[in-house]
Amino acid sequence: MESLYTDTYFMQMAYKEAQKAFEFGEIPVGAVVVSNNKVIGKGYNLTEQLNDVTAHAEMQAITAATNYLGAKYLTDCTLYVTLEPCVMCGGALYWSKISKVVFGTKDEKQGAGRLGNLYHPKTEIVSGIMESECKQLLQVFFDRLRK
Amino acid sequence: MESLYTDTYFMQMAYKEAQKAFEFGEIPVGAVVVSNNKVIGKGYNLTEQLNDVTAHAEMQAITAATNYLGAKYLTDCTLYVTLEPCVMCGGALYWSKISKVVFGTKDEKQGAGRLGNLYHPKTEIVSGIMESECKQLLQVFFDRLRK
Repeated sequence: MESLYTDTYFMQMAYKEAQKAFEFGEIPVGAVVVSNNKVIGKGYNLTEQLNDVTAHAEMQAITAATNYLGAKYLTDCTLYVTLEPCVMCGGALYWSKISKVVFGTKDEKQGAGRLGNLYHPKTEIVSGIMESECKQLLQVFFDRLRK
Repeated sequence: MESLYTDTYFMQMAYKEAQKAFEFGEIPVGAVVVSNNKVIGKGYNLTEQLNDVTAHAEMQAITAATNYLGAKYLTDCTLYVTLEPCVMCGGALYWSKISKVVFGTKDEKQGAGRLGNLYHPKTEIVSGIMESECKQLLQVFFDRLRK
């Protein structure tokens, strides 16, 4: 029997976070941190509301997860995020020693991947989960912004 | 007449922040953000106290400065930090569009510089201000930790 807890299952939760960002007029990116099939941290992009360029979805999900665990490191955790992490978030994920990072759609311009592997050597990277949905949400946002 | 407000003048303030981190048993790194010769944000490394790998001195100084300004970007601001920013902080400084970054001592292992120029193309980088003092504070900290 297949597990309920697939990468798509948790990416749907990250996508719901991205939808919240969309509703608030923020670039729609959402993230959740999962440990033992349980969401222990989540966040969505709040850079406009907080006037803070560091308030990316991943940063908030990491901080929330470490608060939950009462531990600095996210070993044995997975981050699901709708858009490929930027350099700042890639650097934060490096420090977190997270086991796995799963992202929806690639960020060709700002994604950490363009600089090689910024993550911890022990971090597994998976991409393309719900890619079209994650990409479309961003496209609709930017199309509306341009109008 | 020379200005009172030299890079060393503000690096001394960042150094004081680093000393606070030292007293709390944190890796001693401190930072201040300056606008029009006024400190508008400061911070020191709090990763252990907050159990949060993102709680670097620079991240807190950036967030404090943007809160003070009520603006997302730190154009016309300078960040003074005792240790070269890491990749996460370099990425955050990129997003902030800060005008100038001044650091004390180079971080050969984790410094953003090893990946090329992560900062915004408009950001000026100055290094080596109070280099020996900043380096020594870190050395004393790690020497004590090893004992």
